[in-house]
Amino acid sequence: MTRPIVFCTDYGLDDEFVGVCHGVIARIAPDARVIDLAHGIPPQDVLRGAMVLAGAAPFMPEDAVYLGVVDPDVGGPRGAVAVRAASGALLVGPDNGLLSLAWEALGGAEAAVEIAAPDVLLEPVSATFHGRDVFAPAAAHLATGRALGDLGPEVAVGELQRVTIPAPGVVEREVAAAVLAADSFGNLRLNARPVDLAEAGLAGPGRLSLIHAGGEADVRTATTFADGLPGEVLLIEDSSGYLSLVANRGDASALLGLRAGDAVTLRREE
Amino acid sequence: MTRPIVFCTDYGLDDEFVGVCHGVIARIAPDARVIDLAHGIPPQDVLRGAMVLAGAAPFMPEDAVYLGVVDPDVGGPRGAVAVRAASGALLVGPDNGLLSLAWEALGGAEAAVEIAAPDVLLEPVSATFHGRDVFAPAAAHLATGRALGDLGPEVAVGELQRVTIPAPGVVEREVAAAVLAADSFGNLRLNARPVDLAEAGLAGPGRLSLIHAGGEADVRTATTFADGLPGEVLLIEDSSGYLSLVANRGDASALLGLRAGDAVTLRREE
Amino acid sequence: MTRPIVFCTDYGLDDEFVGVCHGVIARIAPDARVIDLAHGIPPQDVLRGAMVLAGAAPFMPEDAVYLGVVDPDVGGPRGAVAVRAASGALLVGPDNGLLSLAWEALGGAEAAVEIAAPDVLLEPVSATFHGRDVFAPAAAHLATGRALGDLGPEVAVGELQRVTIPAPGVVEREVAAAVLAADSFGNLRLNARPVDLAEAGLAGPGRLSLIHAGGEADVRTATTFADGLPGEVLLIEDSSGYLSLVANRGDASALLGLRAGDAVTLRREE
Repeated sequence: MTRPIVFCTDYGLDDEFVGVCHGVIARIAPDARVIDLAHGIPPQDVLRGAMVLAGAAPFMPEDAVYLGVVDPDVGGPRGAVAVRAASGALLVGPDNGLLSLAWEALGGAEAAVEIAAPDVLLEPVSATFHGRDVFAPAAAHLATGRALGDLGPEVAVGELQRVTIPAPGVVEREVAAAVLAADSFGNLRLNARPVDLAEAGLAGPGRLSLIHAGGEADVRTATTFADGLPGEVLLIEDSSGYLSLVANRGDASALLGLRAGDAVTLRREE
Repeated sequence: MTRPIVFCTDYGLDDEFVGVCHGVIARIAPDARVIDLAHGIPPQDVLRGAMVLAGAAPFMPEDAVYLGVVDPDVGGPRGAVAVRAASGALLVGPDNGLLSLAWEALGGAEAAVEIAAPDVLLEPVSATFHGRDVFAPAAAHLATGRALGDLGPEVAVGELQRVTIPAPGVVEREVAAAVLAADSFGNLRLNARPVDLAEAGLAGPGRLSLIHAGGEADVRTATTFADGLPGEVLLIEDSSGYLSLVANRGDASALLGLRAGDAVTLRREE
Repeated sequence: MTRPIVFCTDYGLDDEFVGVCHGVIARIAPDARVIDLAHGIPPQDVLRGAMVLAGAAPFMPEDAVYLGVVDPDVGGPRGAVAVRAASGALLVGPDNGLLSLAWEALGGAEAAVEIAAPDVLLEPVSATFHGRDVFAPAAAHLATGRALGDLGPEVAVGELQRVTIPAPGVVEREVAAAVLAADSFGNLRLNARPVDLAEAGLAGPGRLSLIHAGGEADVRTATTFADGLPGEVLLIEDSSGYLSLVANRGDASALLGLRAGDAVTLRREE
């Protein structure tokens, strides 16, 4: 039984990079189902790619091989790794932390190898397209059932690179957060969860002040889009468990003038 | 035999929403072929989504399960339904009219249920991502052959929401129409068909005046792009049977300054 | 055994054109794997489509059926052809040169037919969407094992249209080139290869002047992105074997103000 491959990159879909990797996979694992998780990760945004992979993991087939490529240091000294998680899932990509949040979501990293086997690499390996020449073939071989150890020498899991989501600052009646991502609807995901609001004593329905570099706005805590008046900015728990700023039938990013990376403070005046 | 799933949303492909739904489908129906019909429906444009689903229906596999998600009222009181068409095709999505033109194209709605079975829903159902938690699992279960009635209680088909394409205004020598959609080539589809031109006495080759808020232009009726001089605006019957304004090797939307929703009048001076 | 289909168009993914063709394929060849090579070819850019198909060919399954649609003259007198390459691969598309670089990469064209069989065409064939009505069904029939000769009358391979990549101008210490394409990272592919630099006596590490209509810049020859300082413009051999202007963690297109079609001269001062 060929394992499915969950494929996530910052390649975009305008060019042929994703399609060429699909061809490489089809040559090695003609029966593998490929799930294109996302190819619109902002270019070279390793943290965002890591969050997308981890957030998706609970919804992907349990025997999946994750193929992640967000790789600003392609051709440089960073490693190319394949990792087995405690759940049995496998993960393939650059050793820059991209896979780290996903393997944590999948029970932790159990074993890892450097991808180096000559019969796995597409020789000559280009200096710029390791998705095609290193990672896609490695994932495809694993999908067909090849053993992790076949791909190259062992790497200690403690040596693998990791990323962390920056924590919000929580004090009495105030949460200092950052916009982690804006989606294509203009919804703004923050690096804070309902538990952070509760810790600050801001839980429950009501209005909060949102302070940011461009000014101040009034937002209302709610459960879903449909709770708001058209154009009203709401603070909800989104489908990933984070707090998001959203607007009913509107674009919160445009309404607030905020985008990924911006700092915001949520506060309730006495 | 697993049925194919025809998947159409306004999620876009920049984010992971479509890919996460693919994962949910793959867990439940690992052999289902998923046809990504379109994920670029303009955000929350239910009518446009309905037209795309209906226009595509004659070209999709006859046993398809249609999975449509354009859902401005997610989390609100609108229903979540699965519908069987007279052709045998099944349709899954929000009860907001999105599916209604497609089931008409497939012979009419024969039976419908509210999606409510606990073993179908992904619990806890999020307030904002019913594509993942309600619609994708329902479509996947139907693709594996589960009975419609297994998904939840029956809904009278007469109670289902419907949308209608606004009709053009036709008088002697004049058709008052609207731009239904602009595609990525800049072709402009109108809510009028060749039969409307005929009714107005405007059929056959010739020139027509096109009047719109931004001015007036001269267009020529033709059969295909290649009939025009480079940059000339033509009025043709497009591949869906509607009239479209197009330009040979050009972008009619940019040339005319028109986009979806704009009103136009086609007229022939004596 | 159904052959895989490699699908490449300028349809974009905003509209339903690609998805409708997938439906047509699924009706005829329900087991065919479809590899979406690229659908973001710039509208009507036949040369770019031809280069993408040819560059991808070494990485696609050997028994693939290539389905290419970049078709500015749809509905006009250009032919619709299916071609067998010496490798055994099959190619389907308009007879405008789009397929020509790929069949050369696959060993040359061995046989060709005009697509005309009534049981292959979706009647009535629209004037504007031959991807749906002519090319997708032809590719799907070939994928199921139908003989090339079944699709229509033979065409002499010498009569097929071809495109050529314009050659750079090479003189002592100077290469006059053009930007063939900019990818979504802002990398600029030139119509020149390392062999052209060598012929001009410019091979090896060092600095070159890059002269273009907007000014002059200093670039450094290198092996990969990671060799550059952040924002530094490098000249590297890209994954297709062409020279590309790139920037480490940056966008060379934006930095240099260059895009596809622009002329550049690489020169080394004494």
